[in-house]
Amino acid sequence: MINYIKHHEWKVIEDGFDPALNRISESLFSIGNGRMGQRANFEETYSGDSLRGSYIAGVYYPDKTRVGWWKNGYPEYFAKIINSVNWIGIRVWVDEEELDLNKVSILRFYRELDMQKGLLSRQATVEFADGRQLTLRAERFVSIVTPEAGALRYTVKPLNFSGTITVVPYLDGDVENEDANYQEKFWKEIKQEADGNSASVLTETLKTGFRVGAAMSFRLLRNGHPLDFSPQPATRPLYAEASVTVPVKKGEELTLEKLAVVVTSLNFPKQELEAEMLKVLKQIESEGYEMLRREHSNRWAEKWETSDIRIEGDVAAQQGIRFNIFQLNQTYTGEDERLNIGPKGFTGEKYGGVTYWDTEAYCLPFFLGTAPSEVSRNLLLYRYKHLPKAIENAGKLGFTDGAALYPMVTINGEECHNEWEITFEEIHRNGAIAYAIWNYINYTGDYEYLLPFGFEVLLGISRFWSQRVNWSDEKGAFVILGVTGPNEYENNVDNNYHTNNLAVWTLRFTLDVIDYLKKEDPWLYQEVREKLKFNEITETQRWKEIISNIHLPFDKKRGIFLQQENFLNKELIPAEKIDPAQRPINQHWSWDRILRSCYIKQADTLQSLFWFEDDHSEESLRRHFDFYEPLTVHESSLSPCVHAILAAKIGYREKAYELYLRTARLDLDDYNNDTADGLHVTSMGGTWMAFVMGFGGMRVKKQRLIFDPFLPSHWKSWSFRINFRGAHLEVKKTPGTFTVRNHSEVEVAVTVWGKEAIIRDHEKTTFKI
Amino acid sequence: MINYIKHHEWKVIEDGFDPALNRISESLFSIGNGRMGQRANFEETYSGDSLRGSYIAGVYYPDKTRVGWWKNGYPEYFAKIINSVNWIGIRVWVDEEELDLNKVSILRFYRELDMQKGLLSRQATVEFADGRQLTLRAERFVSIVTPEAGALRYTVKPLNFSGTITVVPYLDGDVENEDANYQEKFWKEIKQEADGNSASVLTETLKTGFRVGAAMSFRLLRNGHPLDFSPQPATRPLYAEASVTVPVKKGEELTLEKLAVVVTSLNFPKQELEAEMLKVLKQIESEGYEMLRREHSNRWAEKWETSDIRIEGDVAAQQGIRFNIFQLNQTYTGEDERLNIGPKGFTGEKYGGVTYWDTEAYCLPFFLGTAPSEVSRNLLLYRYKHLPKAIENAGKLGFTDGAALYPMVTINGEECHNEWEITFEEIHRNGAIAYAIWNYINYTGDYEYLLPFGFEVLLGISRFWSQRVNWSDEKGAFVILGVTGPNEYENNVDNNYHTNNLAVWTLRFTLDVIDYLKKEDPWLYQEVREKLKFNEITETQRWKEIISNIHLPFDKKRGIFLQQENFLNKELIPAEKIDPAQRPINQHWSWDRILRSCYIKQADTLQSLFWFEDDHSEESLRRHFDFYEPLTVHESSLSPCVHAILAAKIGYREKAYELYLRTARLDLDDYNNDTADGLHVTSMGGTWMAFVMGFGGMRVKKQRLIFDPFLPSHWKSWSFRINFRGAHLEVKKTPGTFTVRNHSEVEVAVTVWGKEAIIRDHEKTTFKI
Repeated sequence: MINYIKHHEWKVIEDGFDPALNRISESLFSIGNGRMGQRANFEETYSGDSLRGSYIAGVYYPDKTRVGWWKNGYPEYFAKIINSVNWIGIRVWVDEEELDLNKVSILRFYRELDMQKGLLSRQATVEFADGRQLTLRAERFVSIVTPEAGALRYTVKPLNFSGTITVVPYLDGDVENEDANYQEKFWKEIKQEADGNSASVLTETLKTGFRVGAAMSFRLLRNGHPLDFSPQPATRPLYAEASVTVPVKKGEELTLEKLAVVVTSLNFPKQELEAEMLKVLKQIESEGYEMLRREHSNRWAEKWETSDIRIEGDVAAQQGIRFNIFQLNQTYTGEDERLNIGPKGFTGEKYGGVTYWDTEAYCLPFFLGTAPSEVSRNLLLYRYKHLPKAIENAGKLGFTDGAALYPMVTINGEECHNEWEITFEEIHRNGAIAYAIWNYINYTGDYEYLLPFGFEVLLGISRFWSQRVNWSDEKGAFVILGVTGPNEYENNVDNNYHTNNLAVWTLRFTLDVIDYLKKEDPWLYQEVREKLKFNEITETQRWKEIISNIHLPFDKKRGIFLQQENFLNKELIPAEKIDPAQRPINQHWSWDRILRSCYIKQADTLQSLFWFEDDHSEESLRRHFDFYEPLTVHESSLSPCVHAILAAKIGYREKAYELYLRTARLDLDDYNNDTADGLHVTSMGGTWMAFVMGFGGMRVKKQRLIFDPFLPSHWKSWSFRINFRGAHLEVKKTPGTFTVRNHSEVEVAVTVWGKEAIIRDHEKTTFKI
Repeated sequence: MINYIKHHEWKVIEDGFDPALNRISESLFSIGNGRMGQRANFEETYSGDSLRGSYIAGVYYPDKTRVGWWKNGYPEYFAKIINSVNWIGIRVWVDEEELDLNKVSILRFYRELDMQKGLLSRQATVEFADGRQLTLRAERFVSIVTPEAGALRYTVKPLNFSGTITVVPYLDGDVENEDANYQEKFWKEIKQEADGNSASVLTETLKTGFRVGAAMSFRLLRNGHPLDFSPQPATRPLYAEASVTVPVKKGEELTLEKLAVVVTSLNFPKQELEAEMLKVLKQIESEGYEMLRREHSNRWAEKWETSDIRIEGDVAAQQGIRFNIFQLNQTYTGEDERLNIGPKGFTGEKYGGVTYWDTEAYCLPFFLGTAPSEVSRNLLLYRYKHLPKAIENAGKLGFTDGAALYPMVTINGEECHNEWEITFEEIHRNGAIAYAIWNYINYTGDYEYLLPFGFEVLLGISRFWSQRVNWSDEKGAFVILGVTGPNEYENNVDNNYHTNNLAVWTLRFTLDVIDYLKKEDPWLYQEVREKLKFNEITETQRWKEIISNIHLPFDKKRGIFLQQENFLNKELIPAEKIDPAQRPINQHWSWDRILRSCYIKQADTLQSLFWFEDDHSEESLRRHFDFYEPLTVHESSLSPCVHAILAAKIGYREKAYELYLRTARLDLDDYNNDTADGLHVTSMGGTWMAFVMGFGGMRVKKQRLIFDPFLPSHWKSWSFRINFRGAHLEVKKTPGTFTVRNHSEVEVAVTVWGKEAIIRDHEKTTFKI
């Protein structure tokens, strides 16, 4: 845990520069627009430790898998969203000396990410060995209005000397990934050009053949007045630059405005890519930096209008929750159903930037609550489009007849993960994808999604469960052997409660969906049934047998479901008894010791209780929480949020607050000592859930929004915005009251503290305890 | 399964050349002398598919580990006995054209490995595109008398033309491993020289710094008469050669005799290495090829004298068993306790040529039975010397106070394996090392080995078990969670019967040893106790509690111990019901399907029953065999032998014979379709056991040799040689009789078919059924 970020309601602020923190800051100050993202690398040369990262959504490389011992069914590659063309680069020479922030003295340094406006800026005063001093100012953004565009403004001001300043804006496609499995490069040269004040680079990924075009143009200003200049262009493979040398007097400001465009063959045919790139470049040139910046910040204001959460009385908490919301909105905009949300978004290389069950379990609720329903629908369609690959994937593992197993990690529908205990066994992910369909429909009421999309996916998943169970004579029940639950500190266990429970829940839900479809759209249902060769009678008959005879391990003495069979073989010692010097255990203990221990990485049985709370009395929820939470080490960033929501539900408010804090400032305070690798973007969806479902007690049941809100004791108030079925609400909690204001034309049925009400258009209602 | 090897009692014969079989032949015709080994690569250039392999015992490289996701405790590297200097190489030019066996027509080809004499030879008639024909003859061996020496004789005879023949004997240290994890080379240049008819190369392994010196000298003969010649020497880094061009007339024979020496810094100080190398070279030069060959073959005759097994009435079986014995004797001679037996010996790269529990469980009995007891003692000392590393290894996994966990795979005592389910969990290996101590003492009566060697190892292992168990309140018993048994088709299971049983057996045996030592050598025992900080009272108290309260999963209905807890959750379908097209399942099924299935890779529960047969009635042995063997797919080469022995024990003679055949000709018939990778050398020890303990029914109990022999139905007789406590016996089974002949001065107590007898020196006794 490191605590160097200044607290501020809207800004992330770093005051002073410490090279040892540079990678952390590069992550924290990342910017993105759903289409591309950029770590907070410096524009100018920096020879110190840095993780350079410019990422483009959907542009990946299949990096050959590294395994110890190959097993049948392992994927050939791990798909990675890779470091791509560096469009921010500027080299700066002062007289004959290159400015390298690692080689000058940094006298002052201030960096800020303005989350309200979506702007990253930085100021520094630096001194060369001979005493020459400069002030530098940099500001940049990737536009959320024109998502192909990035723009930056970079100013140099000699403080105590006059001389020549050379600026060399460049585009560099000759970049690497730190996590390349075999130290290979992933890009090949297509074309590079530099002419006058513009330049471009066309590159292509090896193997996957994604073509990326980057173009830049720039202008120079002295004291704010445009300068005439004759740049010196230069190119080499994968690289283009333009160099300009200008005499600058002491106290004068030389400003470079660099506009950049990044386009890809994901969005344009290859043969048109160059023309489209130049078209967008021309368009943003005609707008200019200022206009682009204004449009961009205005659009951010609109985003905040529908997604902000306000906290009065706790600046750190306010900054934390906004940071989470800001990063989620920077990562995914929902405009393209081919894209998804990597665990680190566009802020690092770890986890390859590709898709895990995090999306369905932790991110979907945020987008349901804050964005138009099309955004969530696109997250679901991503999986629908991967259904043939999921069926193929299941086929590789020996399943047949349309059974679908979605991959643990994917970008194109193919499995990328290569640990058998995860790849082949962490199959609850398949249930999470089914659950997301239910969640989406429950929230939006968009039942039409079921045919064909939702139903086809549910059928594939149900068919998988139906084949994955086996009958145990010994138990007289169906069992599911050899799985890994969400708690990855157990591997290859039998009858994981969450998995078994989710499997039969999926079967039940699919049966409900079939009943619904037969009633509501029998003709189309019949058509889909034939297409999928769905033998309704025999297949559903088996599902019903499984539902009636599934084994769910249960301890009668304690009245709790067991995480897995034989969980009680373990020594049950509360996590608080672990020597603090040994925490986190995953950095101190051998894997087998972790596996043998009772310690739980993240919600497992409690994940089921969170999702299916209505299957339990509050007393049962409390019994399970009291048993499992003390054994939980929360060593996944996805852990505290679910526990916070359950704690709130059963009235453990202090615990809920404590767990919420752990997730909300996870990255800002580098809680897990790994922010340097990138931000925990998917867990930020969990933070939002912990707030809205925990403090807000918000649920959607029977077309109603349910609230059971409370205020953490030292806060003055909190409020959040929420979209629900065409309505847009603002809810606010103060001591003793809860106010719901409807900002839309659509009336909404709510239940607050058990009391039902209708909030009509543009009305507000205050509830009192 | 491929069946191209001709049957012969003493020889392995290939008649005709098929490039597709070349790698298989390269394995089958391998030669070795315990110090070095050589695949049957051709001497001359061969551009076809080939796995080049010249291996030197103990010379390894730590190849950086390749893993998907790192886990605490994983080793940094996999140690590999690496391909080293090629000393057999000769390039041959006919006029201006190089002889490449892949580019000429091969008119006739005959290869034979004479196991009786330890000689590899080959004859071929080849034709160039222009019709020129040559006969080639090659013979080679690595001396078992002078283990630094290799020698070869290579003859070229033009059949239908006269011309010039250029022969270029060379030493090439610039070699690679196919299985290099990162395509790196492992050798660096030290020095190379060529002068007159001799040359040498000094190389050194990167990282480990093993220096290897290779020297050669050669002479030429025309029609058997020494030739004068002036060689053209040449060197380049890691390489030295001498080239000689000689006019040869049609029908004349040009013979090259090449003598080579390979020495290493394992056996000589680096600064003396070159001088020692030249000394040995001079010595073997003075002997000459013929003398070296004669000595070598005579020594092989002596080896056969004490280790041969004869079968009358079945040439294929005879060839099979001799091939197994020959390869074991080629791989390990027991002169150097730093060396051990890799699963592939010196015949390939797979498994890195390093040590597994195969040695203790499958190879030790062969050396106990056929070699002086010092050989087996050295196998035990290998582990004794690794004890500090085993304690360190256990420490990495969180164990303390002298607990020792021997690695799954090692060459220097450090763990090399990098799958958690094996590395951290396949801990029964630790018990196998304890069992080997018991086995050695039981066989040899060498109780002195216990202090300090045996006892220190046993204490380390017992301390490990003592910490590795945990108390289960639920079970009211000690349990061992998260293990992998010998059946690697189950991972991370709880209470594997074999592991639990072996753990408490180790504790009991260690307690017995302590009682013995306290009585027999209290003074030395006291000294060792203090050195090891062994708190006898508290430590043995805990062991006794564990012994009394260990959980051994048992099914009352069937009256059998269960392979692991919940084994009966599985669907139990006999292996014979698996679609033959899906066999072996490890090449057709995904790993999770294998794990979930009931199928057993190799003896697991039955491994315990084999080792501890006296704990069971014959009825119990049969119940277990009848339950487990039908579920066993025997997909480890180590599987059939144990089952063959048990089958023999319970009177299933046909089954015993069937399983024996599967192991005896495993490589000759390429049963598992993987002989190309190298031979299954450690499983050859299992073959020997299957014969001696299965057909011979041989056991050692209470200082006696027990025999319960039978003759497979279509054999006329079998006989084998056996060493036992200074005596040397020959036993022979014919229909209705069993004869024990004592070839030594030492009398031996035997029990045959339950009847006790003493076989006095140089006497023989015949028993009749």
